[in-house]
Amino acid sequence: MPRVVKHPDIRRGELLDCAQALFFERGYEATTINDIILKAGVSKGGFYHHFASKEEILAALAARLAEQAVERVKDILADPGLDAVGRLNAFLARSRRYKLEDASKLRAAFDVVFRPENIVLYHRVNAASIAVMLPVLARIIAEGKSEGVFDVPDPETAAETVLHLATGTHDAVARVIRAADSSDADAAIEALDARFRFYGIAVDRILGVPDGSLQFVEPGFTRAIMTAK
Amino acid sequence: MPRVVKHPDIRRGELLDCAQALFFERGYEATTINDIILKAGVSKGGFYHHFASKEEILAALAARLAEQAVERVKDILADPGLDAVGRLNAFLARSRRYKLEDASKLRAAFDVVFRPENIVLYHRVNAASIAVMLPVLARIIAEGKSEGVFDVPDPETAAETVLHLATGTHDAVARVIRAADSSDADAAIEALDARFRFYGIAVDRILGVPDGSLQFVEPGFTRAIMTAK
Repeated sequence: MPRVVKHPDIRRGELLDCAQALFFERGYEATTINDIILKAGVSKGGFYHHFASKEEILAALAARLAEQAVERVKDILADPGLDAVGRLNAFLARSRRYKLEDASKLRAAFDVVFRPENIVLYHRVNAASIAVMLPVLARIIAEGKSEGVFDVPDPETAAETVLHLATGTHDAVARVIRAADSSDADAAIEALDARFRFYGIAVDRILGVPDGSLQFVEPGFTRAIMTAK
Repeated sequence: MPRVVKHPDIRRGELLDCAQALFFERGYEATTINDIILKAGVSKGGFYHHFASKEEILAALAARLAEQAVERVKDILADPGLDAVGRLNAFLARSRRYKLEDASKLRAAFDVVFRPENIVLYHRVNAASIAVMLPVLARIIAEGKSEGVFDVPDPETAAETVLHLATGTHDAVARVIRAADSSDADAAIEALDARFRFYGIAVDRILGVPDGSLQFVEPGFTRAIMTAK
C-alpha cells in the first residue's frame, strides 16, 4: 500500500479527533498513546512530532474546543447591534446552551480533570483554554471601555483577571464531584452555584458595571451540568 | 546516651527549623530529606511520622510563616481604633515592611517556588498560606460588612476570592524571575507592579470600596523585593 503523505496540520487534526473519541469512549486514564496511534494509523514518531505526551494532547484538545466555542459565537462577536454588556451576556447565554447540550460529556471530562492527582493536568487544560479566550474577552472589554460601558484601567489585564478568577471555583467544583450521589450532593451543588453567582458579581465590579449586569449562571444550570449522566 | 523522648509538636517544630535553615543555606533543591534528618537528629521514621515528603515540609513551612505573619500583626487585628479599611491597610503596610526586611530570603524562595517545573509545589505552598490567611481576612471583611464599610454578599467567599485573585499574579512574577539581569528586567518589574496595582483596584471593587482605598503596593516596593540579592 503506498504511504499516504498528509499535511502535518491534517495529521495533527486526525490525532486530536482520535484522541477525543477514545477519551470519551474509554476514559482519559484508560487510553494510552498507543491506542491513539493505532486508531489514527500513524507511527510513534508521527505522534511525537506533534505531541510530547498524553497531557499535551489533552491540553491541545482543550484549546481546540475553546477555538470551536469562539467560532460558534462569531455572529455574536460581530453583531453591531450589541453593546459590550449585551455582547458578553449573549456570548455567555449561548455558551451555557452549548454546555447543556454537551452536559454529559462535559461532566465526564470534569471527573478526570478535577481529580486531586490531576491538578497539573487541570492547570494545563485551563491555561490552554484561557490562552484562546483571552484575546476575545480583551477585545470585548476594550470595546466596552471605549463605549464608556466598562470602567477598567487596562482591558488586557482585566480580561486576564476575569479568566483567572474563574479558576477560583476549582475547589467548589471538586467538592461537588466528590459529593456526587452522597447525602452532601445537594449542599455541594448549592455552594457551587453560590460561588458562580459571587463570581458574576466580582466580574461586574471589576469591569465597573452594576451588580447583576453579567449573567454567568441561571437557575438550574449548575445542577443540570453537575448531575448529567 | 539515653534516648530523649520529645513531645511530637516540639519534634515537628525542630524539623521545620532545620529544614528552613537548610533550604536557605543550600537551597531547596540541594537539600535532601536525609540532610534534614541528620541536622535534626531524628530517625527516618521520626521524620515520616510528621511529613510525607520534602514538598510537604515546604508547605508546612509556608503555613508556619503565614501563622507567624498573623501573630506579628495581632495588635493591628485587635486595635479598636481602626475600621476595616484602616485595619487592612495597616496590616498590608506592616506586611510590606516585614517583606522588605526579609527581601533577600523571600527572593531566594521565589526562585524555587516560581520555577515552571515546580508548579505543583507553588500551588501547595500557596494553598497552605491561604488556609492560614482565610479566617483572618474573612473576619476583617465580616467586620467591615457589619460596619457598612464593605459591601459584599458573603465575607467568607469574598475573602477566598481576594486570596485566590492574588495567585493570578503568578505568571507576572515568573516573568520577572526569568528576565532577571537581562535587558527585559525593568519592563518585567514594571509589568508586575502594574499587575499588583490592578489587583488592588480589583480587590477594592470586590469589597465595594472606592478605587485606591486599599494599598497593596507602594512605589519602589515591587522592585526592592524582586531585585533583592
